[in-house]
Amino acid sequence: MPEQMIARKKVISTVEQVFNRFGFYPIETPAFEYTDTLTAKCGDEVSKQVFKLEGTKFGLRFDLTVPLSRVVASNTALTKPFKRYCIARVWRYEEPQKGRFREFWQADVDVVGSSSMRADAECLSTAASALKELGFNGFEVRVNNRKILDAVVTQAGVPKEKEFDVFRSLDKLEKREEEGVKQELKDRGIPDDIITKLMDFIKITGSNEEKLELLEGMVGSTEAGRAGIDELKQLIDFFSKYEISGDCEIVIDFSLVRGLDYYTGPIFEIKIPGGNIGSVAGGGRFDKLIELYDAPATPATGISLGLERVIAVMQDREMVETAKTVSKVYVAPVKPEFYDYALKVVDFFRKSGVAAETDLMERSLRKQLDYANSMGIPFVAVVGAKEQKEEGVMLRDFESGEERLVSLEEALAKLSS
Amino acid sequence: MPEQMIARKKVISTVEQVFNRFGFYPIETPAFEYTDTLTAKCGDEVSKQVFKLEGTKFGLRFDLTVPLSRVVASNTALTKPFKRYCIARVWRYEEPQKGRFREFWQADVDVVGSSSMRADAECLSTAASALKELGFNGFEVRVNNRKILDAVVTQAGVPKEKEFDVFRSLDKLEKREEEGVKQELKDRGIPDDIITKLMDFIKITGSNEEKLELLEGMVGSTEAGRAGIDELKQLIDFFSKYEISGDCEIVIDFSLVRGLDYYTGPIFEIKIPGGNIGSVAGGGRFDKLIELYDAPATPATGISLGLERVIAVMQDREMVETAKTVSKVYVAPVKPEFYDYALKVVDFFRKSGVAAETDLMERSLRKQLDYANSMGIPFVAVVGAKEQKEEGVMLRDFESGEERLVSLEEALAKLSS
Repeated sequence: MPEQMIARKKVISTVEQVFNRFGFYPIETPAFEYTDTLTAKCGDEVSKQVFKLEGTKFGLRFDLTVPLSRVVASNTALTKPFKRYCIARVWRYEEPQKGRFREFWQADVDVVGSSSMRADAECLSTAASALKELGFNGFEVRVNNRKILDAVVTQAGVPKEKEFDVFRSLDKLEKREEEGVKQELKDRGIPDDIITKLMDFIKITGSNEEKLELLEGMVGSTEAGRAGIDELKQLIDFFSKYEISGDCEIVIDFSLVRGLDYYTGPIFEIKIPGGNIGSVAGGGRFDKLIELYDAPATPATGISLGLERVIAVMQDREMVETAKTVSKVYVAPVKPEFYDYALKVVDFFRKSGVAAETDLMERSLRKQLDYANSMGIPFVAVVGAKEQKEEGVMLRDFESGEERLVSLEEALAKLSS
Repeated sequence: MPEQMIARKKVISTVEQVFNRFGFYPIETPAFEYTDTLTAKCGDEVSKQVFKLEGTKFGLRFDLTVPLSRVVASNTALTKPFKRYCIARVWRYEEPQKGRFREFWQADVDVVGSSSMRADAECLSTAASALKELGFNGFEVRVNNRKILDAVVTQAGVPKEKEFDVFRSLDKLEKREEEGVKQELKDRGIPDDIITKLMDFIKITGSNEEKLELLEGMVGSTEAGRAGIDELKQLIDFFSKYEISGDCEIVIDFSLVRGLDYYTGPIFEIKIPGGNIGSVAGGGRFDKLIELYDAPATPATGISLGLERVIAVMQDREMVETAKTVSKVYVAPVKPEFYDYALKVVDFFRKSGVAAETDLMERSLRKQLDYANSMGIPFVAVVGAKEQKEEGVMLRDFESGEERLVSLEEALAKLSS
């Protein structure tokens, strides 16, 4: 409803400004893609959540990363790095068996064309800065790396073809009991001793340095392990140079997996403090996704802010001003014969950039004032014979109760202040 | 691509500002509705253009008016008038038999709850003002009224149940030869003499006054005719009080029908001069649509700007600045060891509201400068040992070629000017 929408617009506009300041530019893609494109690398579970359009080969996007990758793949001449942002809706069946649908807004930034950890740090920093600009403070930035997970899972003895299955099960640890996850792994044919090894790994505690040291011992000598550890170190290092890192605690979290199959390197999430609200931003590197759409290998990384969750928390915490309207002034003709003059007055205000409205209902003055009051419009400009003659308005400030006959210019000055 | 998207964003933001100034507030609705809701009153042809979602009762919206009506119907407590705007995508199969899809942006304003022609005039005026703000000048505002069409069609002898069929055929006159339309009417079972009467009517020429006088004689004594004539007169009268009407020629056009079944009163379109580009905005009153969704009778009217068409014309006429990026300055570290300082500098610029970027690719200085140049970023701030020591940047203005070592504050002043 209006209050919520006006709040949402403000949030989107703030996020957009931050994205712009970080040098990301807007690229939107169609809501549709070929179903094959959508499901090429998302994994079975998300695959089931894709809406298909009857009688066509199209489906609705379930995220903004896949469409971006498809667009980049079909426009190989794009200057790199290609820094784009996109604030748009995506769609998923939340519970396919019930036929329920879910539509939500994501705000993504992506850097395409760079394999440097600088790009990942930039995305994290942009998202955290956007959250700060919205009024949040103190973030937990959780990072992990798919190459490390890959090395650990391989070393534990998981067969290559079951790797993504294991990732998807582990990803559920935040939402589900450990026992349930263990059972799911078992059902997927993973032997008990391997499950124990994996659980021990993701529960490793300690400082980031301690975790990195442990990792060195575990997988530092494998190719994937080595690369993952180096990326993790570089990412933390680059990120720590941004001023916003002062508002963040960066934590290596081996239990962070993220559900989608297309991640290849760093993965990350941002949590805001207070309450059990999960992460409000998440993303990672997807170096192999673009080439899947018949393009040369193109490294890429990005992060996505979940706007629904962000806005819900902001509303709970009364961090957004709620307004029922954007109008600053209501111009009220005392009788229909002054409607012409009322239109002159709103024209004048609008031309000067002040949001103004007048009586579109042909109502009595009393009803007009009731309306303006109930909408919370801060000023009313009453116009009748005297005001018309003197080319002014009787300006009433609802908050102070003050009322005075002023010229249009005086009224404008008051409304613009 | 980036240039187009940046241009589109600017257009949307300008339109949004005008909508706000006119006191319309943002309401967005889901992309989905029950298919039954969507097709309840759109007519057979549009019905066929609705995308259905496999395995559900949902379809994608084909306009923004139907979803608005459904939302209003389920929120009867909304304060009236309810002035909303919505800038969003809609979807239609353009040629269902070929399985092609079409996705386009509409920018709508609607006034719900008022049966006064003031509301229709306000919508027209808002749309014309938005077009003017975008840089267009001199509009043709074509108006007609469904009640008049109804009266004329009835008087000509068209049976009630074929009325909408006739409207839909007549609506094609702009795109198709007259003979084709006549044939279609014939195929729909309309006798020749009635077809001749209808064609004579829609071809009536003359001034608005002459047309109104003729109408009086034809249908002024029927209920629908009387109401339609009065509405037409009032609409023209109210609209002429807005300053923007000075930029418009308002023309009564009996051939204006509009394709959708839900219109009940005034219908209107706005054309921009030059070239054969059809109308860029269109709408009308839909007093019976909201009650269709089990709500009390609620009058409503609105207009929709076709953003694709508007933007296409603006690009053709070079009315939009094309930029490949939003960044104002590129901060170039001469070597990797100055990347930390480069991040400090971009942090400073960004915090001050200046869109800034730095090297996410770990490239040589030369390649960085090539990139900044090819993207059209207006300034480059080179940073090396000397700049870091003096806490400044070597600021190069690409346009003037001027280059100078300046403090961060000086650089900021230059970038913000």
